[in-house]
Amino acid sequence: MKFGVDYYPEHWPEERWTVDAKLMKEAGIEVVRLAEFSWAKMEPEEGTYDFSWLDKAIATLGKEGIKTVLGTPTATPPIWIIEKNPEILPVNQEGIRLSFGGRHHNCQSNQVYRNHIKRFVASMAKHFSNNPDVVGWQIDNEFGNSHQQLCMCDSCRTAFHQWLQNKYTTIDNLNNTWGTTFWSQTYSSFDQIPVPLRTPNSHNPSLLLDWKRFSSDLIVDFQKHQLNIVRKECPHHFVTHNFMGFFDKTNYFDLSKDLDFISHDQYPMYFKKSIEMLSHKHSLAATLDLMRGMKQKPFWIMEQQSGPSGWETMSPTPRPGQLALWTYQSIAHGADTIVYFRWRSCLFGTEEYWHGILPHHGEPERRYEEIKQTIGELSPVMEMFKGGLPDSDVGILFSYDQEWAFQIQPHHYDLNYINHLLGYYKAFYEANIPVDMVSDEQDFMKYKLLVVPLLFLSKPDLTSKLEKYVSDGGHLILTMRSGVKNWNNTVIPKILPGDLAPIAGIKISEYDCLNDVSQSIRWFSSELFDKVEQVSKWADIITLDGAEALAFYAEDYYKDTPAITQNIYKQGITYYVGTELGNDIMKEFICYVVKKSNIQPILQTPKGVEITNRTSKNGKYIFILNHNPKPEVFYIPYNWEPVIGQRFLVDSKINLPPYGTAVFKTK
Amino acid sequence: MKFGVDYYPEHWPEERWTVDAKLMKEAGIEVVRLAEFSWAKMEPEEGTYDFSWLDKAIATLGKEGIKTVLGTPTATPPIWIIEKNPEILPVNQEGIRLSFGGRHHNCQSNQVYRNHIKRFVASMAKHFSNNPDVVGWQIDNEFGNSHQQLCMCDSCRTAFHQWLQNKYTTIDNLNNTWGTTFWSQTYSSFDQIPVPLRTPNSHNPSLLLDWKRFSSDLIVDFQKHQLNIVRKECPHHFVTHNFMGFFDKTNYFDLSKDLDFISHDQYPMYFKKSIEMLSHKHSLAATLDLMRGMKQKPFWIMEQQSGPSGWETMSPTPRPGQLALWTYQSIAHGADTIVYFRWRSCLFGTEEYWHGILPHHGEPERRYEEIKQTIGELSPVMEMFKGGLPDSDVGILFSYDQEWAFQIQPHHYDLNYINHLLGYYKAFYEANIPVDMVSDEQDFMKYKLLVVPLLFLSKPDLTSKLEKYVSDGGHLILTMRSGVKNWNNTVIPKILPGDLAPIAGIKISEYDCLNDVSQSIRWFSSELFDKVEQVSKWADIITLDGAEALAFYAEDYYKDTPAITQNIYKQGITYYVGTELGNDIMKEFICYVVKKSNIQPILQTPKGVEITNRTSKNGKYIFILNHNPKPEVFYIPYNWEPVIGQRFLVDSKINLPPYGTAVFKTK
Amino acid sequence: MKFGVDYYPEHWPEERWTVDAKLMKEAGIEVVRLAEFSWAKMEPEEGTYDFSWLDKAIATLGKEGIKTVLGTPTATPPIWIIEKNPEILPVNQEGIRLSFGGRHHNCQSNQVYRNHIKRFVASMAKHFSNNPDVVGWQIDNEFGNSHQQLCMCDSCRTAFHQWLQNKYTTIDNLNNTWGTTFWSQTYSSFDQIPVPLRTPNSHNPSLLLDWKRFSSDLIVDFQKHQLNIVRKECPHHFVTHNFMGFFDKTNYFDLSKDLDFISHDQYPMYFKKSIEMLSHKHSLAATLDLMRGMKQKPFWIMEQQSGPSGWETMSPTPRPGQLALWTYQSIAHGADTIVYFRWRSCLFGTEEYWHGILPHHGEPERRYEEIKQTIGELSPVMEMFKGGLPDSDVGILFSYDQEWAFQIQPHHYDLNYINHLLGYYKAFYEANIPVDMVSDEQDFMKYKLLVVPLLFLSKPDLTSKLEKYVSDGGHLILTMRSGVKNWNNTVIPKILPGDLAPIAGIKISEYDCLNDVSQSIRWFSSELFDKVEQVSKWADIITLDGAEALAFYAEDYYKDTPAITQNIYKQGITYYVGTELGNDIMKEFICYVVKKSNIQPILQTPKGVEITNRTSKNGKYIFILNHNPKPEVFYIPYNWEPVIGQRFLVDSKINLPPYGTAVFKTK
Repeated sequence: MKFGVDYYPEHWPEERWTVDAKLMKEAGIEVVRLAEFSWAKMEPEEGTYDFSWLDKAIATLGKEGIKTVLGTPTATPPIWIIEKNPEILPVNQEGIRLSFGGRHHNCQSNQVYRNHIKRFVASMAKHFSNNPDVVGWQIDNEFGNSHQQLCMCDSCRTAFHQWLQNKYTTIDNLNNTWGTTFWSQTYSSFDQIPVPLRTPNSHNPSLLLDWKRFSSDLIVDFQKHQLNIVRKECPHHFVTHNFMGFFDKTNYFDLSKDLDFISHDQYPMYFKKSIEMLSHKHSLAATLDLMRGMKQKPFWIMEQQSGPSGWETMSPTPRPGQLALWTYQSIAHGADTIVYFRWRSCLFGTEEYWHGILPHHGEPERRYEEIKQTIGELSPVMEMFKGGLPDSDVGILFSYDQEWAFQIQPHHYDLNYINHLLGYYKAFYEANIPVDMVSDEQDFMKYKLLVVPLLFLSKPDLTSKLEKYVSDGGHLILTMRSGVKNWNNTVIPKILPGDLAPIAGIKISEYDCLNDVSQSIRWFSSELFDKVEQVSKWADIITLDGAEALAFYAEDYYKDTPAITQNIYKQGITYYVGTELGNDIMKEFICYVVKKSNIQPILQTPKGVEITNRTSKNGKYIFILNHNPKPEVFYIPYNWEPVIGQRFLVDSKINLPPYGTAVFKTK
Repeated sequence: MKFGVDYYPEHWPEERWTVDAKLMKEAGIEVVRLAEFSWAKMEPEEGTYDFSWLDKAIATLGKEGIKTVLGTPTATPPIWIIEKNPEILPVNQEGIRLSFGGRHHNCQSNQVYRNHIKRFVASMAKHFSNNPDVVGWQIDNEFGNSHQQLCMCDSCRTAFHQWLQNKYTTIDNLNNTWGTTFWSQTYSSFDQIPVPLRTPNSHNPSLLLDWKRFSSDLIVDFQKHQLNIVRKECPHHFVTHNFMGFFDKTNYFDLSKDLDFISHDQYPMYFKKSIEMLSHKHSLAATLDLMRGMKQKPFWIMEQQSGPSGWETMSPTPRPGQLALWTYQSIAHGADTIVYFRWRSCLFGTEEYWHGILPHHGEPERRYEEIKQTIGELSPVMEMFKGGLPDSDVGILFSYDQEWAFQIQPHHYDLNYINHLLGYYKAFYEANIPVDMVSDEQDFMKYKLLVVPLLFLSKPDLTSKLEKYVSDGGHLILTMRSGVKNWNNTVIPKILPGDLAPIAGIKISEYDCLNDVSQSIRWFSSELFDKVEQVSKWADIITLDGAEALAFYAEDYYKDTPAITQNIYKQGITYYVGTELGNDIMKEFICYVVKKSNIQPILQTPKGVEITNRTSKNGKYIFILNHNPKPEVFYIPYNWEPVIGQRFLVDSKINLPPYGTAVFKTK
Repeated sequence: MKFGVDYYPEHWPEERWTVDAKLMKEAGIEVVRLAEFSWAKMEPEEGTYDFSWLDKAIATLGKEGIKTVLGTPTATPPIWIIEKNPEILPVNQEGIRLSFGGRHHNCQSNQVYRNHIKRFVASMAKHFSNNPDVVGWQIDNEFGNSHQQLCMCDSCRTAFHQWLQNKYTTIDNLNNTWGTTFWSQTYSSFDQIPVPLRTPNSHNPSLLLDWKRFSSDLIVDFQKHQLNIVRKECPHHFVTHNFMGFFDKTNYFDLSKDLDFISHDQYPMYFKKSIEMLSHKHSLAATLDLMRGMKQKPFWIMEQQSGPSGWETMSPTPRPGQLALWTYQSIAHGADTIVYFRWRSCLFGTEEYWHGILPHHGEPERRYEEIKQTIGELSPVMEMFKGGLPDSDVGILFSYDQEWAFQIQPHHYDLNYINHLLGYYKAFYEANIPVDMVSDEQDFMKYKLLVVPLLFLSKPDLTSKLEKYVSDGGHLILTMRSGVKNWNNTVIPKILPGDLAPIAGIKISEYDCLNDVSQSIRWFSSELFDKVEQVSKWADIITLDGAEALAFYAEDYYKDTPAITQNIYKQGITYYVGTELGNDIMKEFICYVVKKSNIQPILQTPKGVEITNRTSKNGKYIFILNHNPKPEVFYIPYNWEPVIGQRFLVDSKINLPPYGTAVFKTK
């Protein structure tokens, strides 16, 4: 199964199903995802099940050779459940219980709701366990989506208390760890601890971080609750869940562990006002790299954009070639299966402008033809890449704990963990240097260069691991605010960067939040002239303690003190960047570091042309992706063997059309 | 009764009433509106009525020949009602019951409240039914004002269920119509259906449209509840209600039907930060045209601005001449009676900066003199215009259903039904071509040109009516997003513009929401040079199917495809505009269309000088309104006979002072 | 006691206390504030007291000669109180009860809470009454902080009713005073009156002003409740409270009356996005002048900024020299004692980025050295200034009632009472003319010039006082919107400026809110050329009635009418400014007025160099404060005798380093 589509037979008359199945087959579709929002249709009243319509749909598709992945529809409890047990509805930060009427109107800690799930999911799984056309399951849908403030109901409060008790054992331990002596917040029992409902000012930052961890663990536990049921009834089916890239309500590393593989929903064109994080080409690539990093193995795209997205507002329409381009990009970064969302634009409901491959009227048009052609081109060669991954010399450490800690205390209004991290990612991306996103549990030694941005919370085992990495010859980039706090979000009373000082070879005597304050740095470029560029958000004021300076501040009372340093430590090097860099000096810096680390870009390409590799047992495959709305021409090494896109080659050059793609094999 | 004023005798000592009455009479005032917020004074405790003060006030005014219109004070239930029945207080979208302390603190579905109204309004009506100075009634005040989110209490929920049951008869019918299979929202009984309280994400768009219709109908029904009482007790009195122009909580066409005539509150200078819709001269004219369109007959201005408006903040002060100008404008567009709001600036309460004709201190000043002079000038000639209406060749269809549908799904962040419509209105306004605003129930055949903007929701009878209109020689302008949905807000699975395709002669294969995307169009102007101008919000990508192109897109992959088309259909022409035009090409386009439709502007005037006609059985009267803060000079046709403003004529030219006005009669 | 520090021994291990005490002593610290947030540690469960740790801490500090001020910890009721009496938690404007988890989570009217306080504070006060190291008390902490919307619970509602009954005696009196006849808001008993919870629109402005006064009085009463306890137990201790400058939830004049002296928390660098009011040098000076004005005597700084401030976000770091500079500035404006906040940056809790003198790691660094040096320099000479105050010829009247009235009705979106007032302050500040901030109860006669900005609410005794002031030769500046309303926030029906008209010699026939309207004025400068400058917010249209015009409007229909007037009244002069001036004409105007009033600037200094005086029984001391990040050189009068900063003198010039300071004595 290499290409699929998300399909909602329950939205269409039965007689259309055959038409759809034939059109799918013609386009090369081999798998569908079904039923993930259809609880009401499968259990119209408590204990009365009707799977017959779904049996029929699966069979109709099966007749065309199309397999089915089923979703557990637990993101949409029907009204009769809510009517019976309104306590399932989630409560927001104001203490207001939300209403039925959308989706995700459920509290994930609620035991009554879990019992409804147990009854229903067990029945559903049992019913489909032996259906030969069913191959696997998706649990729920996009966990954490729609739960902006997380649920703050009494059930969650009790679950939070239990979670805290498991973590801290005694209330004294919690009091000491959180520093509740501040503002007289000392507790004498766990059940006194508030969930972070609105207070006259701010909650304790340690409580807030534990709340975010608890909420993440709750989702992991909620998934496990369903996984256990499905695995028991359907031991031969795979189980996955559809992630959402940089979405951060759940620690996806944790959520991944229980799954056979992870899936991801990739929407390059978003329907809301553009969010910086999502609106750049490098962010799309970074998203896919993060998803691959979850289990360091290939993954599915469970929802690959197939048209304009939209709820109340809409994205622009994907330009001709972009649906293909994005498909190639997903595969290039490690997807083995691409499932498009959705088959046909729905005629009703909140998502009627979340366009499918087919338009509302159902006749194949441009999007169908483009996807059909893309599948036709890729399907024969997918086996070559299968199981392969990009070959990366650079790792960037991604940490949900750091992300949450900066949400709780952003320091500067505009400081954002993910944007800071993407600043580094972008420099590698534009230099055509593949990157892996890694968790702190993964192996660092395979990377020539490791970037650990904003290592704000530190813990001894991670510090040791980094020390060992550098000792053994690794090159490490650390950035501002490293080593400030322990893992419980309280400050370590040491000179910064705390336990990282030895490998960084610096001391930070002071720091300056660039809140309405201007600062810039000077980089001694390889040419005759220096570059000076604005920096932002923060400035560490650094004293060298073994390290040497690579760049200097250019303004205010700490002018001419070091802003970027490098420290040779045993076999390796630690770089420290005391501020948030602008694009130009970031580029200079990464160029410098990459050379030092002996890392080679794949190829020089015109701006906007992404190039990356995917290396399987069959060889190393180079994907070339033109993200520009105009053709791009450039040289291709003589020894690269075209796999797709030979037609674009003229002599030793490739002439890619707008949004055009090609795949080569290197020797 | 041609001129009146809104008066609050209860705010002033009784001895002042005589002074006020005399000053009113001197200014030419013939009618007052009284008592619309004075429930507490008329019924200080349940069942104890005191109308004596009002009798006295009416008599004092009557002695000066001034008649009275009474308001039912149901927008301000007294505290003793709220204390007894707090369930009358409205509930907002968060589920929070609002507090007593302002006005409109009432739920319009609440039966207990309706009973209070029944008791009180019957007593009041009975008491005044034979008072010879009382001539009519205003029901409540500005329905829908202050109900931003509509009431979401349990009583409204029950009323909504009843409304839905009346509309859909069976729950299956509702489920099928709304497409509740989407996200498992299927209902098994009407009482399960939520009111749109906050959910984790979005409600079903069909539910939301029905909710808006229900809320509108509720207001119509609430009015009828009072109307029945008043009509029964006072069969010889007229009954009206004061509307608020483009305000859209109620379908004013529906609200109009039960009234003898409609009234309108006209405030050209608003106290809040300027709202685009209201801040332009053409919007003021459009507002009046919409009000005239309600019953296609003359109306009252029940509140004509008489000074700076203000609550917590204030508008600027109307410039000398503007109060007169706005009075002329109201009459020009169809008002037969002008009632100024208010007599004297109040000394207390929320509206103490909503300035009256008299200032706080009560001595006549500039505003009193200006209004007195205006009345003196107009009063003798009002009879000539009476009952007359503007003579318009152009109709613009206004639809509350479309407005609501675009509120629910604006498509593009800045797309707004009324602003889009006003883009067309403005082009006619600036060309001095009178326009009627029409509902879809009114006769189209009287117009040479009909503009139907954003005909998003379509219904067969309206489609047929438009087809017949064009067939019989009408010229029709349709715009983007036409024919997308049925009247229940779900998508029609047809190639766009759906059932309108035959008369438009086009097919829309794709569309592009201009969300962060640039687009422009090229108009082949009559000169040698083309005009290219930015468009916004949306671009339909059009294939000609009989039509010909008038303008073309100028950017991106659909460059050079049609953006505006014209299609000769039987005896008429359909124009289709696939995007939202800028000012320049809108002007070119309307100029082109107007010529084709053989429509003549009244006269060329300098920018900022409005000219329109009002045609009664006595002849056609031309109103000239200089909205500019400077004099304007221009030619007047030799055969126009001055009615007002002869003093401004010099030879064949008129020299209007700043904000000056004149009226002519044509032969 | 001249220098102190806020210290939290409970945040640090006991063994550190000795180290801290020694470091404090070395730095010259003589007093600490302790325990103001430590209820939970002193009363871990109801009725069980543990003051032993605090005894120990006090003794440890006492051994180094450091005295203690104790805070009553009533801003942080422990969780066991909230658990037992959740009704103590405050309720916001939506009617939502806030949660435990921050601080100030208490309703100040709640009797149950007051009983808890009575029990605890009595025990605490009794325990420490005879401790020789304890010298005084701070009641609670920063009253009003964190109570953005004030508490709207049932207890506050009842207290509000009682307050209203005390004020108005009868409900008829209240109805008449508030004008409740408007919108039928007439009450028949006090207990019907709402607290200003959210309504469909706006509450009565008189109710809103009384609500703000009630809330202020409630805080005064809450302080008195504690004061009585402390004074009874500790008759020999002083009692103070830490104010927050222009913070306006409480009328600080009222709050001051019950205190021995007031204290103030001075934070020149704020952690939130810059607020105009706070971000200018002149605002810092104005804040201090307001604090001095409370009791017209010296005060304490209870929290003087000692490092970057921060909660979730941070301020920049104070530049080298700024901590010293701000210390000098506080003393220059009347502080006798400077207590720095805080000793050491906390390792946990909401304020871990509110940096202390010591950094998190506890080793003395730059900030410690700077403060130590500052204390070393100042300590020997503090006795000279002690008890002295600046000698000011100018008074600016500050009124909480006016501030509240403009919050309720700002008239123009951007009109703000304090910013308007600071416009005048700034002109004097930049001209090096010292200013006193005075309440309307204080003596005006000592000032050559009195500025009364926005005297919106007027009352007969104040009007008389001002009339007498001018009659007797005083120069008075009045500004727009004077004399509009009575003290109960309803309009006085007189020609403006109402009762102030006689002394102003003008009549205001109209006014124009500059809401989206442009206006400017022309000042006839002493040179050949006029100045024209934009004005904003408001324009009074003035008719001279004895006064003469100093400046004229330059736009629109009231062009060339007076904008600023002066009126010779008996022995004095009244100026009236009918608009909000820009910087340039404000400067011209103040320069003109100052000359007329025969007021001398202390000295001409470069921009950014503040100069002011503090005059004690020992003489007149001149403080020079360089707020610029660069050195400034200028002449010093030959007869000024250096007290501090002699090293900066070169011949007759002073060469101040960046942020440098000096003190001179004049003869």
